Parts: sequence; structure tokens; C-alpha cells
Amino acid sequence: MRFQEKLRHAWRKQNSLLCVGLDPDPAKLPGVLTGGHTLFEFNRRIIDATAKWSCAFKPQIAYYAAVGAENQLEMTIRYIVDNYPDIPVILDAKRGDIGATAEMYAREAFDRYGADAVTVNPYMGGDTLQPYLDRTDRGVIVLCRTSNPGSGDIQGLEFDRESVALRVAKMAATDWNKNSNMGLVVGATYPEQIKIIRDVIGDMPMLIPGIGAQGGDLQKVLKAGLDRAGTGLMINASRSIIYASNGSDFAEAAAKEAQTLCNQINSIREKYLQ
Amino acid sequence: MRFQEKLRHAWRKQNSLLCVGLDPDPAKLPGVLTGGHTLFEFNRRIIDATAKWSCAFKPQIAYYAAVGAENQLEMTIRYIVDNYPDIPVILDAKRGDIGATAEMYAREAFDRYGADAVTVNPYMGGDTLQPYLDRTDRGVIVLCRTSNPGSGDIQGLEFDRESVALRVAKMAATDWNKNSNMGLVVGATYPEQIKIIRDVIGDMPMLIPGIGAQGGDLQKVLKAGLDRAGTGLMINASRSIIYASNGSDFAEAAAKEAQTLCNQINSIREKYLQ
Repeated sequence: MRFQEKLRHAWRKQNSLLCVGLDPDPAKLPGVLTGGHTLFEFNRRIIDATAKWSCAFKPQIAYYAAVGAENQLEMTIRYIVDNYPDIPVILDAKRGDIGATAEMYAREAFDRYGADAVTVNPYMGGDTLQPYLDRTDRGVIVLCRTSNPGSGDIQGLEFDRESVALRVAKMAATDWNKNSNMGLVVGATYPEQIKIIRDVIGDMPMLIPGIGAQGGDLQKVLKAGLDRAGTGLMINASRSIIYASNGSDFAEAAAKEAQTLCNQINSIREKYLQ
Repeated sequence: MRFQEKLRHAWRKQNSLLCVGLDPDPAKLPGVLTGGHTLFEFNRRIIDATAKWSCAFKPQIAYYAAVGAENQLEMTIRYIVDNYPDIPVILDAKRGDIGATAEMYAREAFDRYGADAVTVNPYMGGDTLQPYLDRTDRGVIVLCRTSNPGSGDIQGLEFDRESVALRVAKMAATDWNKNSNMGLVVGATYPEQIKIIRDVIGDMPMLIPGIGAQGGDLQKVLKAGLDRAGTGLMINASRSIIYASNGSDFAEAAAKEAQTLCNQINSIREKYLQ
């Protein structure tokens, strides 16, 4: 199934817009985990605990690459594919490079790891996105306006009264998304940008980081970002869920946090669906 | 030794501004290589053949990640460090992410792989560069104006008659480079940009891709980009050197190509040093 269809199916079937970020920092893992594959074991228990409340999982590759644990990232994605085949996996890698190299990165994300979608950085231009976009069955989620404090340094620069981020959204909508397999990253910390970008991109999915630890406002995000079907968003939470407890109850605490957030999102969006 | 000093030392000692890109595509390797570590074996022979003419080596991580060969990237960098300790290694990874994740990427590049410098993408803003810059002994080489045809899509956008790329150069020079460990990537295919950026950044090193297979003009690049000491540039060539021959003489052919390019560069820069 193509990524966009798999995602729309997951939104409906799971009745959730929550994306759970799998960013296991070895220094923060619960002490109860021991043995050779602690990142994977941690993820496995988080996945089992939160799958019911999730429309997507998003492992962030840096946490595996820093410690030479690419094999545990492979195991994690395979575990999701085998056990929760309806839930898409977004590899958060924010890759960006010229054509020949971008093809290698596309292979890394889609063939080696088997991810349904990958995040990419648009700074180098549209031609550098093409090798990912050519994989029409996979999703390509392009950084547009990110959630961090310094995101305005470049993304917020304005020319002809348009920000760089808005220009990225316009290029995405008009030039880049020929295969209907693109999405955009827009931070929850900039809800007014979410609204402007939604108006430009129609029903294209948005991945929304910045809820939870970074303090984005859920109500504003949903009001600004929902598509016409009351979906269109993957609202990511990582640390607030996976580190909800540092004890032996970490998986139960993660489940509770995911359930709470999923329900919060649903009760807000019900208001906007009427 | 700090990266900047190591690089300046290499420019002088090697009498070269040539950076050799180690981008081994498994589909393009000479048939004479067999066995379990062909990427490393290929690199080892290229390194031994070209070290004499090089001021830096630049492995591109995608070529290893696509095929799950991170161990061969580790072996490659260790081989350079052990055998050519005066020649800095730039890990071409073009990473970019928020603080906590950027710290993981810095660990990947500097601790896991032991690279002297890493390339990073500035799209997410200055705060996302800080975890790399805080590693004052290592180099941080920021994408500014890249060599590919689509680089203008974002980097070429102009506001107040300044391009995004020029604004990146100005932020690099005035805000970001507090630890004097930054460099910029500027493509050989835009020599007029190299000149404008050189005027802004003083003696900050530039990594110049786009010579060779991409067709940048060496004469224009050197005229525009040399610093006051007649150095300041790492002029990268990858494919034109490493694939100079596909036969059993591939290493000799690479050496010849590297020697020719190094000498070409030196004969042109002599003109500008008088």
C-alpha cells in the first residue's frame, strides 16, 4: 500500500493522530533493561504499549547511529512491520544531498530499513528530493518550519513578504509533489504558520513535532492544521511518552500518556468536525 | 590538534588544496576487488595512492549506510588516522536536527567515527549547529551554496537583495563561529558566489564540491576563493579520481588523476600569490 493510503487508513482505523517518536537515549533508559539489545527491548515494550493509540511510529536515526546500533533500528522497524502492519513507520533522518548520494540515502531508508517514509531537508533544492519522490510507494516528509527556537534564522527569512518556509510549502504543493507522496514538517510551536501552510498545501499530511517537552499548544495546532476530513496531521510526541516513567512501569506509563494525548487530540478535533 | 590548525598544517605540508571524496558505490567498484570488505579495500588503495596529493579525505556516509557497511566507514577513517595522521578527515553527513538529536549526531561523527570535521545543514537554524560547534577541537562545515542545479530553490532566494546563502555566510561569520571551528560549503559551479562569500567570511575555510564530474571551473574558483595565504580551500573531487579507471590499475589511475589536479590547482594559485 502506498504511504499516503496507509497513513489515511491508520488515521481512521486507529482513530488517532498521534505519532510516537522512538528516540531511545541510552543514558535515559530505565535501569530494568539489561542485556545486549536494550534499545530494541525498550522500543519493543513502548511499541506494544502505545500501538493502540498511535497512527505512526517515528524512530530518530541519530539515537542508533551515535552508539553504532543500526541493527537495533533495523530490528525495531521490522518488529513494527511484522506486528503492526497497519501502522506506518517514518524514519526521521532529515537527509539531504545531491542526486547520486540522495539515491543512496533513499536506499538506506526504504530498502535497508524498510521505512514507509523518511524525513528530508530541502535546503539543497528540489532536484535533491527527486530520488526519494521517485519511490512512489514511499512517503517523503520535507522540513518546512521546524519547532526549535532558531528555526527562524533561515526558515523565517522573508522576501516579497513570503518566508522561506512558506516558499517551501508552495514549491511542495506546486512543483515537487507530482507523485502525491509528500508531507511537510511544521512545528507545533508555530501554529499561525501551520494555518498559512495548510491553506497552501490542501490535504497534504503534516508531521507536527513540538507538542509535549517543547510546549506546543494542541488546541491551536488542531484548529490550524486539520484537513477537510479532520485528519491530515501526525502529531509527534517522543520524550513525554517514552520517558513518562523511569521505573519498571515505563511501558504502562507510556501507554497511559499515549492514551491521554490521543484522547485529548480526539476530543479537541471533535469540536472542529461538527 | 584543533581541526583548523590540522587543516592549515596539511595545506602547507602536503602543498595541496585537494580533498579526495571517498564515495564508493558498490555498483561501480573495480571487479578486481573481492571478499568481505570491498568498500574498505577500495578506499585503502585509493587513500594510499592519493594521500601524497591531498589535504583532506572526505568519506560520504550515505554510501556506507545504504548497504549497512558502517563498520567499513569506521575502518576507513581509522586507517587514515593511523597511517596519515596529518591529513584531516571530513565526514560528509550533512546532518541537521534539534539540540538533543544534534548531540547524538555530533557523537556519531566525532566519537564513533573519529572524524576531524563533519558537514552540517543550516536549514533548522543556529541553535541546531551549537552541539557540533561546542566540540571546539573539531570542525563544523556548514552548507552555504551547494553545487547542484537546484541549489537556487532555497539558497538563491533573495530578500533585501541578499540571498539566503549570503545570509548564512554572514551569520556564520558574525554569530556562529565563536569557536573558530567553522567552514562553509560553496559549490565550484557558482564562482561569483565564492567571491562574495569569501569577502564576508575572511579566512574561514571553504569546502568546494563541483569540480570534476560536475564541471566547475578551477581557474574561476581559485581566483574567487583563495584566502590571503593562498590557501583557504578544500577543493573536492570524488568520482573523477576514485573511478578514474575501472580496471586493476584503478589505484594508479586515481593517483595520476589526483596528482594532475593537485598540480593544476598549484600552478593556477601561483599566479594569484605573486
